[in-house]
Amino acid sequence: MATILLTPGPLTTRPETRAAMQRDWGSRDPAFIAITSELRRRLLAVAGGEDSHLAIPLQGSGTFIVEAAIGTLVGPADKLLVLVNGAYGERMVAIANRLGRSCAALQVAEDCPIDPAALDRALAEDPAITHVALVHCETTTGLLNPLEAVAAVTARHRRILLLDAMSSFGALPIDLRAIPVGAVMASSNKCLEGVPGIGFALVERRLLEASVDNSPSLSLDLHAQNKGFEANGQWRFTPPVQVAAALVEALRGLETEGGPSARLERYRRNFETLAKGMTELGFRLFLAAAVQAPIIATFHQPKDSWFDFGLFYRMLAERGFLIYPGKLSHADTFRIGCIGALEVDDFTRLLTAIGAIKTALQNGGKQPVAGEI
Amino acid sequence: MATILLTPGPLTTRPETRAAMQRDWGSRDPAFIAITSELRRRLLAVAGGEDSHLAIPLQGSGTFIVEAAIGTLVGPADKLLVLVNGAYGERMVAIANRLGRSCAALQVAEDCPIDPAALDRALAEDPAITHVALVHCETTTGLLNPLEAVAAVTARHRRILLLDAMSSFGALPIDLRAIPVGAVMASSNKCLEGVPGIGFALVERRLLEASVDNSPSLSLDLHAQNKGFEANGQWRFTPPVQVAAALVEALRGLETEGGPSARLERYRRNFETLAKGMTELGFRLFLAAAVQAPIIATFHQPKDSWFDFGLFYRMLAERGFLIYPGKLSHADTFRIGCIGALEVDDFTRLLTAIGAIKTALQNGGKQPVAGEI
Repeated sequence: MATILLTPGPLTTRPETRAAMQRDWGSRDPAFIAITSELRRRLLAVAGGEDSHLAIPLQGSGTFIVEAAIGTLVGPADKLLVLVNGAYGERMVAIANRLGRSCAALQVAEDCPIDPAALDRALAEDPAITHVALVHCETTTGLLNPLEAVAAVTARHRRILLLDAMSSFGALPIDLRAIPVGAVMASSNKCLEGVPGIGFALVERRLLEASVDNSPSLSLDLHAQNKGFEANGQWRFTPPVQVAAALVEALRGLETEGGPSARLERYRRNFETLAKGMTELGFRLFLAAAVQAPIIATFHQPKDSWFDFGLFYRMLAERGFLIYPGKLSHADTFRIGCIGALEVDDFTRLLTAIGAIKTALQNGGKQPVAGEI
Repeated sequence: MATILLTPGPLTTRPETRAAMQRDWGSRDPAFIAITSELRRRLLAVAGGEDSHLAIPLQGSGTFIVEAAIGTLVGPADKLLVLVNGAYGERMVAIANRLGRSCAALQVAEDCPIDPAALDRALAEDPAITHVALVHCETTTGLLNPLEAVAAVTARHRRILLLDAMSSFGALPIDLRAIPVGAVMASSNKCLEGVPGIGFALVERRLLEASVDNSPSLSLDLHAQNKGFEANGQWRFTPPVQVAAALVEALRGLETEGGPSARLERYRRNFETLAKGMTELGFRLFLAAAVQAPIIATFHQPKDSWFDFGLFYRMLAERGFLIYPGKLSHADTFRIGCIGALEVDDFTRLLTAIGAIKTALQNGGKQPVAGEI
């Protein structure tokens, strides 16, 4: 059995997605221009943004597209308010500071959702704020922030919402026809189940048009990037052609599965199987159920003497399961992703392996040899 | 017969290189940390930089790593002199301007190499210049600039040389033990014959150490990127894991082939076959032989009535050969790459196809049906 990734991305992809990388594409050839066109069209369709937004893919990781969006859309005279309850909110603050953009943070604890009422007060108090940034699902914990309420408050104050939808896009509902969002940023390798190497932003047309000279970077200038696509359908600078082809194949797979709602249901089944089984094995979830998205589960590390994360990780890896370390500032945790080309059966197998490892470690700390379980 | 790419990258890769992308890697797993370590070690070895330089891979295209190197290594109080004889020299000027770095250009025509004597005078005249940037092989034309002479002049004036080796790294000789170069920038998908998605810089250790607070970008900060690798062997932000694995496989292939000198010989055989055959077919090379690198060949578009580049391109594409449009400001040209997993036989087949297309177009302009040739 091949190793599976129970991580927040890079994650387990379908064989068809990887097979799409078995070809050399000329980046300026009509065949690849068609790939790029299908990519941009499908990205918009996932969020219903066809009539209002432009899809702008960018080379690089999720952080690159978040930096590109902030640098392009938040002008030198603007002010960004970042809603922070995890590492990815903090990263947006770090990006804005590095770019020399005026920035404030509204911070709550890592296990608490953003409070729309606090945002309402902050916007009323500081008229200098022009943009609000929210992390939809904090990959730090798996916490789901209240997108609709935050978007409504932001729109009522006539500010622009930038949404980091890295861990949610393609599964959790984002309907750009119903929710006022200036820009959504996400990447190829999370709920879309592509391979890593491309980020993208869906940017409101008029917002992009007004941002022509903002970007302090040539490579990360989303206005110029879009202009390239509009001019001849090509990427300005060499695209990762295989990654793009894999992402298009992954988007076709999303459609075949039934779209984001069907994918969310699969992830929910994965999460519920995992949460129930882990609870039975004595592990505790970090988040309250009310704020938990079925994307990634954070568990407290047991305080029992048998548990050592490094050993636990290695023993699971030997059995073909890669999990993820924690990323919290104040608690010892580990994370198990529920996303990727995974089904309930994969989690049942995982739980069997975790149970056997726990038993083996409790019985004298000896590591069972491979195949023993 | 599958389509082959006669382009300056993305280019034709070996099946083994593409096969390396058929796996999902956990980006923080020891197995991928080993890939990253081998990648950094092999990149240094290609240029003999093990004792003096650090290899810093970065997500994105070649332009991203050039911008990262300029932003990280040229400080706000420094001044960059760019030696320009093509689009990639011009791009470095555009990057420096966008980053707000003080910048001057020493420009010659696109068919002329950079003149070390002119550089000598420029550096003598302007003591404010701290860094000099050179494009080793201009992908615009295929022109080879005089690296050794430029490096010697730059070092004699105690300035720092930044080398854009995008189209040369892995084939043309770059010996960091013998030639004083502060930083070399290149990418995965040219003479290394990997797939696109990763750029990298080999940066002199003491130069990098002195650049801690320079970068105006978080994502493109090479000092911070290196710090991430040094801390735990991992990439700071999600790496394109399949692209990295393919690049390591491609670097193993470079070693198996006999290193850069053997690869250069293969490219030279490709180029000479191409140049001789095209001359016999009545095409003219744009560059003089003395400045032509055997990497990419630029040909004048024939002024004869039978020639139409769009039609010529499509007829070649139908026969499985993708060539490349020109990128010159003052001449109608097209380009044929000699790099990638290609042998003399591929160019012989190409020449047969070009000859048949020329004959068909001359005889009434009718396009022969597929299989006729």
